[in-house]
Amino acid sequence: MRTVYLNGEYMPENEANVSIFDRGFLMADGVYEVTSVLGGKLVDFEGHAVRLQRSLDALEMRNPISKEALLEVHRELVRLNGIDEGMIYLQVTRGAPGDRDFVFPDPETTAPTIVLFTQDKPGLANSPAAQKGMKVISIEDIRWGRRDIKTVQLLYPSMGKMMAKKAGADDAWMIEDGYVTEGTSNNAYIVKGNKIVTRALSNDILHGITRAAVLRFAQEAQMEVEERNFTIEEAKKADEAFITSASTFVMPVVEIDGVAVGEGVPGRVAPRLREIYLEESLKAAI
Amino acid sequence: MRTVYLNGEYMPENEANVSIFDRGFLMADGVYEVTSVLGGKLVDFEGHAVRLQRSLDALEMRNPISKEALLEVHRELVRLNGIDEGMIYLQVTRGAPGDRDFVFPDPETTAPTIVLFTQDKPGLANSPAAQKGMKVISIEDIRWGRRDIKTVQLLYPSMGKMMAKKAGADDAWMIEDGYVTEGTSNNAYIVKGNKIVTRALSNDILHGITRAAVLRFAQEAQMEVEERNFTIEEAKKADEAFITSASTFVMPVVEIDGVAVGEGVPGRVAPRLREIYLEESLKAAI
Repeated sequence: MRTVYLNGEYMPENEANVSIFDRGFLMADGVYEVTSVLGGKLVDFEGHAVRLQRSLDALEMRNPISKEALLEVHRELVRLNGIDEGMIYLQVTRGAPGDRDFVFPDPETTAPTIVLFTQDKPGLANSPAAQKGMKVISIEDIRWGRRDIKTVQLLYPSMGKMMAKKAGADDAWMIEDGYVTEGTSNNAYIVKGNKIVTRALSNDILHGITRAAVLRFAQEAQMEVEERNFTIEEAKKADEAFITSASTFVMPVVEIDGVAVGEGVPGRVAPRLREIYLEESLKAAI
Repeated sequence: MRTVYLNGEYMPENEANVSIFDRGFLMADGVYEVTSVLGGKLVDFEGHAVRLQRSLDALEMRNPISKEALLEVHRELVRLNGIDEGMIYLQVTRGAPGDRDFVFPDPETTAPTIVLFTQDKPGLANSPAAQKGMKVISIEDIRWGRRDIKTVQLLYPSMGKMMAKKAGADDAWMIEDGYVTEGTSNNAYIVKGNKIVTRALSNDILHGITRAAVLRFAQEAQMEVEERNFTIEEAKKADEAFITSASTFVMPVVEIDGVAVGEGVPGRVAPRLREIYLEESLKAAI
């Protein structure tokens, strides 16, 4: 039985409930973050705290907790649940005003809802999936236009994951106007020679915390980084492909729509970036 | 204190809670319906029940309740809360699997969540807003691509309502590729002479239950109905404009982006359609 955090209290997970009037439940009016835990420490907590604030600002939602207090809650949950490797999920919603209305509730009388829980994932860093690489399919990207705000409007990404599963794949890359936007819960990359290509930041994609770190490490390792759109056809013909996310770190993609990428096995760049990322993240984790 | 219905039980509204792991809360993985109550009876219950099933089917979600039992819950909530005029809100989510995962939970072990509550709105039929007409602004439509599925992904419609409020208007009409799709929680129409123009059904708009009824009544009243796209410029120059929804019925729009529509007061067609709709709905209510 996990201990979770809800609105200022630590409690058993099966007692953690929110009102049916919570705007997270009725209107998807909430944002989230997922922070990885390695060696019992938090990976890039600062990055996630900053992005949380950015998401809240974009939705004119009040932040119910200071960065210092948020760090303390993360650490306490890690301690209480004995997490060595895994994730901490955080969600903030506009709260439960006691009825349903499209108009935002008055923030003076309706406090945001804040919930955090852990996910224990022993072996996350040494994932066999990273050795093998993953298979993706391509699907149309029909999500809303502000994917840079990390909202809980995750129905389509969830449907995409199911489409992938039914097709015998591990995930889906989404395509809009002919170009890959990103994976269902990760940023997408291809490799051509010494060059890493990934879509530039905009409202079209999540501003990945792991993306920022990996691109920095890639440049430090003398790799060239090109931020531009790419098609799924270009991806199929690339030397390598991979994804990044807070919970998968760097993960090679070895097949796209049934077509082998490169040799159809993890190449040279993605595994090396994963190694660097894990090493640096462990060093910097708090 | 309202009595609400949650997963088979009637309970006080302040005791109606769902798990933090409910997919409605974590992933907007839920659908809803709003049925109006007039004279203590349900308006077009059948239409809402059919659309609920359509939404559930589109998301491969199990329907947790038969149509007969659902009708009984609606009626019991009307009785318990003494509703003469108002709405009944219904939401079904994919349930609470006890953890967070993009992959759908096994429907054999995770039951859907079903919740219903009433909203008491005395005077709904004789709304002063219908006498005065409403003002709308136009905003970009950035919602996801399956607006025909009535999901709880209502963050953008909610933001749109706030943009309207800040602009001193009552609602927003959304524009995609140069054409009006619909209002934030209603279908949009313009009137030119004896002709009613409204966007045709597709994945781009909600398949309004009230829309279907109003178009039928309009044709029965010898009005011409043209289902096609229209621009916001065409709407500003129209003789009349109006919206329909289950909770506003037919409501004249008298101003668009600060420009008066027609004489800037409710015209002839929208009030007449409202009258017919209310009369017929009351007659057919169950």
